[in-house]
Amino acid sequence: MIRYILAMVAVALAAPAVAEPVRVSSPEGVLTVSVDVAPDGRPEYSVSRLGRAVIAPSRLGFLFTNAPQFLRNVKVADAGRRSEDGRWEQPWGERRFVRNRYNEVRVTMTEVAPAPGRRIDVVFRVYDDGVGFRYEFPDQAGLKQVEIAEELTEFAVADPATAWWIPAFQWTREEYLYQKTPITEVGVAQTPMTIRTGDGLHIAFHEAALVDYSGMNLQNEGQGRFRAVLTPSSEGPKVRRMAPFTTPWRTMQIADSAAGLVTNDLILNLNEPNKLGDVSWVEPFKYVGVWWEMHLDKATWGAGPKHGATTANVKRYIDFAAKNGFRGVLVEGWNEGWNDDWFANGKDFSFTRPYPDFDIEELARYARSNGVRLIGHHETAGNIAVYEPQLEAALDLYQRLGVDAVKTGYVADMGGVQTRGPDGQVRYEWHEGQRMAQHHLKVVTEAAERKIAINAHEPFKDTGLRRTYPNMVSREGARGMEYNAWGAPPNPPEHEANLVFTRMLAGPMDFTPGVISLEGKGQKIQSTIAKQLALYVVIYSPIQMAADLPENYEANPRPFQFIKDVPADWSETRVLNGEIGDFVTIARKDRKSENWYLGAITDEEGRVLSVPLSFLTPGRKYRAQIYRDGPDADYRTNGKDIVIEERQVTSADTLTLRLAAGGGQAIRFVAAR
Amino acid sequence: MIRYILAMVAVALAAPAVAEPVRVSSPEGVLTVSVDVAPDGRPEYSVSRLGRAVIAPSRLGFLFTNAPQFLRNVKVADAGRRSEDGRWEQPWGERRFVRNRYNEVRVTMTEVAPAPGRRIDVVFRVYDDGVGFRYEFPDQAGLKQVEIAEELTEFAVADPATAWWIPAFQWTREEYLYQKTPITEVGVAQTPMTIRTGDGLHIAFHEAALVDYSGMNLQNEGQGRFRAVLTPSSEGPKVRRMAPFTTPWRTMQIADSAAGLVTNDLILNLNEPNKLGDVSWVEPFKYVGVWWEMHLDKATWGAGPKHGATTANVKRYIDFAAKNGFRGVLVEGWNEGWNDDWFANGKDFSFTRPYPDFDIEELARYARSNGVRLIGHHETAGNIAVYEPQLEAALDLYQRLGVDAVKTGYVADMGGVQTRGPDGQVRYEWHEGQRMAQHHLKVVTEAAERKIAINAHEPFKDTGLRRTYPNMVSREGARGMEYNAWGAPPNPPEHEANLVFTRMLAGPMDFTPGVISLEGKGQKIQSTIAKQLALYVVIYSPIQMAADLPENYEANPRPFQFIKDVPADWSETRVLNGEIGDFVTIARKDRKSENWYLGAITDEEGRVLSVPLSFLTPGRKYRAQIYRDGPDADYRTNGKDIVIEERQVTSADTLTLRLAAGGGQAIRFVAAR
Repeated sequence: MIRYILAMVAVALAAPAVAEPVRVSSPEGVLTVSVDVAPDGRPEYSVSRLGRAVIAPSRLGFLFTNAPQFLRNVKVADAGRRSEDGRWEQPWGERRFVRNRYNEVRVTMTEVAPAPGRRIDVVFRVYDDGVGFRYEFPDQAGLKQVEIAEELTEFAVADPATAWWIPAFQWTREEYLYQKTPITEVGVAQTPMTIRTGDGLHIAFHEAALVDYSGMNLQNEGQGRFRAVLTPSSEGPKVRRMAPFTTPWRTMQIADSAAGLVTNDLILNLNEPNKLGDVSWVEPFKYVGVWWEMHLDKATWGAGPKHGATTANVKRYIDFAAKNGFRGVLVEGWNEGWNDDWFANGKDFSFTRPYPDFDIEELARYARSNGVRLIGHHETAGNIAVYEPQLEAALDLYQRLGVDAVKTGYVADMGGVQTRGPDGQVRYEWHEGQRMAQHHLKVVTEAAERKIAINAHEPFKDTGLRRTYPNMVSREGARGMEYNAWGAPPNPPEHEANLVFTRMLAGPMDFTPGVISLEGKGQKIQSTIAKQLALYVVIYSPIQMAADLPENYEANPRPFQFIKDVPADWSETRVLNGEIGDFVTIARKDRKSENWYLGAITDEEGRVLSVPLSFLTPGRKYRAQIYRDGPDADYRTNGKDIVIEERQVTSADTLTLRLAAGGGQAIRFVAAR
Repeated sequence: MIRYILAMVAVALAAPAVAEPVRVSSPEGVLTVSVDVAPDGRPEYSVSRLGRAVIAPSRLGFLFTNAPQFLRNVKVADAGRRSEDGRWEQPWGERRFVRNRYNEVRVTMTEVAPAPGRRIDVVFRVYDDGVGFRYEFPDQAGLKQVEIAEELTEFAVADPATAWWIPAFQWTREEYLYQKTPITEVGVAQTPMTIRTGDGLHIAFHEAALVDYSGMNLQNEGQGRFRAVLTPSSEGPKVRRMAPFTTPWRTMQIADSAAGLVTNDLILNLNEPNKLGDVSWVEPFKYVGVWWEMHLDKATWGAGPKHGATTANVKRYIDFAAKNGFRGVLVEGWNEGWNDDWFANGKDFSFTRPYPDFDIEELARYARSNGVRLIGHHETAGNIAVYEPQLEAALDLYQRLGVDAVKTGYVADMGGVQTRGPDGQVRYEWHEGQRMAQHHLKVVTEAAERKIAINAHEPFKDTGLRRTYPNMVSREGARGMEYNAWGAPPNPPEHEANLVFTRMLAGPMDFTPGVISLEGKGQKIQSTIAKQLALYVVIYSPIQMAADLPENYEANPRPFQFIKDVPADWSETRVLNGEIGDFVTIARKDRKSENWYLGAITDEEGRVLSVPLSFLTPGRKYRAQIYRDGPDADYRTNGKDIVIEERQVTSADTLTLRLAAGGGQAIRFVAAR
């Protein structure tokens, strides 16, 4: 109705500010960010690449539940610039050294009316391969207790594009198959969401350093425009903070090729440096465990005749681990509370009381005496109201037993994570709301005090916090191997080729590969053996499980050899080729030797890929131990046909990789002395 | 992770229930609804029409913030059926008598586990031209205080279709231009959302009887599947109720033609009968007012040299109304609080203290002595924390002065409607959350006690409550005439042809047509004069404004004659033709005479429409007073070319309507004695 007056006033007041847009370009001038005020007085940013629009003018702002909105009658100003060109070392990771080179500008957004105008800053960091920006709320009278109803950040994609995405707010977690659609057909997507424009430009939208805030999803507004939708809270505002504070970084990784996204360090670079000091105790490793047999229904988590976590069964795994060089043995279903209706809400879980048939003291001792460590397990069923009060005692127990890695789980199939509200009543929360951001960081910091690493399943999304808290080693947060046991449908051959360019851009995933028996629960795994091996190189994680049953490895010693050989920590990573959802080839160099490893995977299509070995050290000889799909290999008919052979190669050679439909190839390059 | 167990259990438990789907068909067997349990134990409904799927299996259920979700491990059962075939009378409306004919089934959804299972019923009412269903929460131990995090109701459109929609959660209101896209390109839409399948089936999704609940929006889930997204609350759960209670009806109006949607009474039929008893005091009328001159910037709402609501100026309007037969005179800007920063939050508004230059007592007396009534105005700026405490006194004042209609306004451009939380602090709410549903009903019932009618602008969405509270006469809730004054862009020629098949399906709109000068504030109105006249028939409202300045009507007496003649209350309504966003022709019969009126409008395309007059009483002669676009008429170049002529017609005649680009035609059929 009277909206018109407001618009007029807004224009009038904002007019002076419209004069000078704030611009900042990346170090090599590849990307340029411009911040301006629209005619209706709204602040907007845009991104161009080599002179071409990538992100059209997109709004910035907030709605609050306890204060007037912040989105109009604003002037923007350049409040200072910074540049950095540094290098930092990862204690573990896909590569040892990471370059951090950007130009930064702080833009103040100040309300012109009503006076006294409130102020929110936006800090942009512009890299040649991506942009990150975050809001900074200063300590000010007009906006002290900040209760955010919605963040109005927009991402307006300038060109038609295809998106690879999974829906948000379907369920309370992330385990879906990726959809490939025009961006105009995205509903509300989780991040990372990856798109490819008609010109072949690749952009991944995500966030970095998500601390004490709620997770961002992307809502399709039409015409290629997306808007942030924060994850709700049961308590009203989606985020409640006291100023001063900063939001997470909103990130756009931008590359000419799909491969360029995978080697993009934007998200790690936007996180704070290591806050834990000496983290030599965080050790990448491979592990086996009492897990797959439950998914096959050969054993149960709960007590009973088929109980998997028995002292005898676990000793069998410890012996197997010791014999084959695995450091860890995961044991699920070891503790009280896995009764028939555990999933009703996890209310009966004890994280310190083992089942009577699981002698935790003896097993910890037996493991250590065999050079193996038990891996702890905290399945909460998403009931953190039950878990948090037990957290410290549970971690103390593991510390005493020498258990230095714990897998946590949040299977909340009752409609949300359970916690307690200020009123003491049970509250159901979304997995990625502010309350869970607080919880997951609490678990990681409590664990760090005890030199314990955390691997969360049904986790909070990864936003690169492993840089700040290097004991946050891995997580799930996508459809993993378990779906090949009982998923309807199981993971299709393209699944891992989707993950590499979407979910994996967020960080490591505990996918638990290596089921070389290719047998699920009454269904075949849509893969070849060679692809199962290649996943150890393709799907990065500092902890890698050999997921199959010990007897299946013992029955297949030759392919198993690669799993025994492959490391879980790298000094370098190269993505040699790849297209989203189709195929990818990745080479990584062992952190502890001169050896290289290569993994190539494909979707349901067979491929012939030509791969120059130029990543190898020139002049050096390597024995290439090749695990490739056999001539009759095909995921539909004969996944087990594998050829294992060895040949001499140098960096001057080019290999031709023949991947079967649903297949892959794994190669170990052993550097000659 | 362990999701698989749950799925298995769910199937096992749900299995017995899967046996018998519950089915119910409409009286003539056109539509059939089936309710079943999916293999994963989720309740689903589907809709077919004449044997063909219209809505594919779509989920039912809820997430709660204070209790486990209700969406799986459910069995469904037929708990009884009802049928009705009745007729009821509208005190005012598009037609006098409405037929209400449906078959109803109550489906109980009971949790099989955990025991004791909770129960939620779903009641389906199936008409031959639509389906409505609502959830009913019984009084039960397991679910007494109901705090809804999300309603999981889905609408899976079975066939590819085109959607006409406006986005939700953009802003805190409904004033947008309709987008036409494939349904796969809808983001999150407000309702009504209208779609047309490839086969030409038309479906409008909306809701009925929205009381003490939050408004439903539709989120695109991909593949033609939409899911309810309730409007958030600042206090946590989107809806907070004590059982027993029922949700609003979720509605699907279904017709072979666009015209079939407009004459569809599903939403009114699903509302409760009149609760106010004798409502003869609710009188449809036409009005003029101190309004358009403010939008043209010729006058101001606030005090000052250009103040519009002065005693002298209002007397001018009263004289004009009396002379030309208008019952009402609206006066905006009459009360204190319209200061320069009123829009900051409306905190200064008084609803009982007139500005000194507005003698309300004298003007009310002067109006009555001239057979005219002042129309009250309560602009709240969305600050109901300021408005509600003054509501009763404000209405008492108007009652004493004989003011029996009030226009309310909720221009909340500060990020939401302001109210007070339980803590006494200001809270910003969305326009269509539960709190505002409560507020708007409170205003209507308080007004009813004083025999005052309400016309809300920036309102809560219309869901047919006018049947239950007939003093809820009209509302805005879409882009109206004001956007032609200052809108950037102004309403395009297709706008009203979109409204008829989308927004208008919800109920009456106070569009305020009739600006025959075709002049906005420095911009032309995208219309012809004939179209402005046709809007009085095409856009239904029981109160119709003649929005233009009195001097403009005095300068154009011949077209003004139609506005003086056309009534605002009807005994019959016929939609003679129409396509969404293109054109429409509607004929309505005056409630108080044998006369008929016809309005036809088109978009930017000229049209030649052949219209049989079979709606007229056979054998009777009528003088057709025709207001048509002249030979040179075109909204771009010459909107003012109009031909006014009269001819004799009978029901046997067929008229050929020639509509100019952006034009229309209005006809008054005067029945011979």
